[in-house]
Amino acid sequence: MVATKQFDLQQFLATRTDAVNRALDKFLPSEKTKPATIHKAMRYSLFAGGKRMRPAVLLAAAEACGGKGSDAMPLACAVECIHTYSLIHDDLPAMDNDDFRRGKPTNHKVFGEGVAVLAGDALLTQAFEIAAQCKKFPRYPHNKIILEIAKASGSLQLIAGQVADLEGEGKKLSVDELKFIHERKTSALLCCSIRLGGMSANCSAAQLKALTAFGYNVGLAFQVIDDILDVTQTSEQLGKTAGKDVAVQKATYPSIVGLEKSRKIAEQLTAKAFAALKIFKGNAVALEALAEYLLKRNK
Amino acid sequence: MVATKQFDLQQFLATRTDAVNRALDKFLPSEKTKPATIHKAMRYSLFAGGKRMRPAVLLAAAEACGGKGSDAMPLACAVECIHTYSLIHDDLPAMDNDDFRRGKPTNHKVFGEGVAVLAGDALLTQAFEIAAQCKKFPRYPHNKIILEIAKASGSLQLIAGQVADLEGEGKKLSVDELKFIHERKTSALLCCSIRLGGMSANCSAAQLKALTAFGYNVGLAFQVIDDILDVTQTSEQLGKTAGKDVAVQKATYPSIVGLEKSRKIAEQLTAKAFAALKIFKGNAVALEALAEYLLKRNK
Repeated sequence: MVATKQFDLQQFLATRTDAVNRALDKFLPSEKTKPATIHKAMRYSLFAGGKRMRPAVLLAAAEACGGKGSDAMPLACAVECIHTYSLIHDDLPAMDNDDFRRGKPTNHKVFGEGVAVLAGDALLTQAFEIAAQCKKFPRYPHNKIILEIAKASGSLQLIAGQVADLEGEGKKLSVDELKFIHERKTSALLCCSIRLGGMSANCSAAQLKALTAFGYNVGLAFQVIDDILDVTQTSEQLGKTAGKDVAVQKATYPSIVGLEKSRKIAEQLTAKAFAALKIFKGNAVALEALAEYLLKRNK
Repeated sequence: MVATKQFDLQQFLATRTDAVNRALDKFLPSEKTKPATIHKAMRYSLFAGGKRMRPAVLLAAAEACGGKGSDAMPLACAVECIHTYSLIHDDLPAMDNDDFRRGKPTNHKVFGEGVAVLAGDALLTQAFEIAAQCKKFPRYPHNKIILEIAKASGSLQLIAGQVADLEGEGKKLSVDELKFIHERKTSALLCCSIRLGGMSANCSAAQLKALTAFGYNVGLAFQVIDDILDVTQTSEQLGKTAGKDVAVQKATYPSIVGLEKSRKIAEQLTAKAFAALKIFKGNAVALEALAEYLLKRNK
């Protein structure tokens, strides 16, 4: 991990976030485009100060494989639209019923439930519209790219995770059941983002395999840490309602195996993720730094 | 319209509906696939006895251009998934708040609001997963196909129509404002379906232009007739709540221009649609029959 220490992650995140924000602004219809309500609602959540973690890992994976940021950018924007749509719908009263997200009132609190549902729908649709505008990568033509995104976001992955999460509330889950949820709810889209980065750089099969292992493990670690932060941080620190998991009796790693063991699990997953990056022989410094950052974050 | 009379539309619809149902059944995860709830919910609405009108016009357009049904089938299934998702979300309490659809309780009435939102999300995502599995059409590669579907379903078309519809409730709208809604809420996806049929047959630019004009006008006619049926038919006849538009003070063609003029408008739109089909020189009998059927339907 020596390389990580010489790498300026804050600068990487700042420049990439800025580039992603500019690209998203261009892809999305303006706030004035009729009907203005839907475009205001889409932009409200898309530009609510998200960490752009999925675009960041996507762009970092592209760089690790020698790709260009401009080739990867439409895919980075597409995954961010999917992530934002999933948050808008998850926050709805019929789901997690959250009033705050990233320190701001949730979409339905501002625009009403009907428009919030539609804003989510529109961002999901927009993701595919944007992804279809990427250039054609020789090894990964558009149909493969679209399939990659649709599968990671569909009823067997992202949505499966949310359904299992909803159904698990108030129930005692096993570690395996919780892992089923985490793999789908968080790991799937994060792993997909990392794979898409590689694809946009026309990566080899071996590189794609390494990125997949990295993404899977970082994704799981990310969610374990989310669970930990929910019980150890305040709402102000998180910018969203803390202690929510305990309040709705949601099964989490801390609630099943305790805080200390949860931290260990997150560290082990991160170690596995790091091991997967060997193949890049020091060219994956941004990915390494991101994984370390995700493990040590406090919000 | 002589050709229409010799064409057995009922047989066409029966065989095509059957083929579409079989294809959808193959594309969708089984009811037992974990988490079972979401797949049950997706299939509940997808197989609730819908008229399969969008797949039918898509397949008819493909045939008019000399294409094969098997090439068009993934796209026919994709547009039906989009249509079904839009109905599930439109029926939600936060939107049209409908308890019945096609004579059966609406999705959220059976599975609850949270799952209904997710089932809609999953069908929308599934549409792109299925569309990405179509073969590569020389003139219309996958990126064009995906863009076509995403644009017709996005915040400038299908979703724009639903937002404008929501915002128009209880307001006095002009004919132009109503047309803005109808063009987006109904015509966009119907027109997209017809265009996709042509694309799957690798149609010429002139054929695509003709199909677009046909689809636009049939789509508008379809919605005008929907408005008419809402005030002239009973709930039993429609299989959904009749008189709904009047109850929620929704602007409709009958409420703005009266029943008789509404019928005239529908007829004029259908005539324009027919005129567009001239280019096919008698090879578009299925499309002609469908347009006639849509004009004369009573549910």
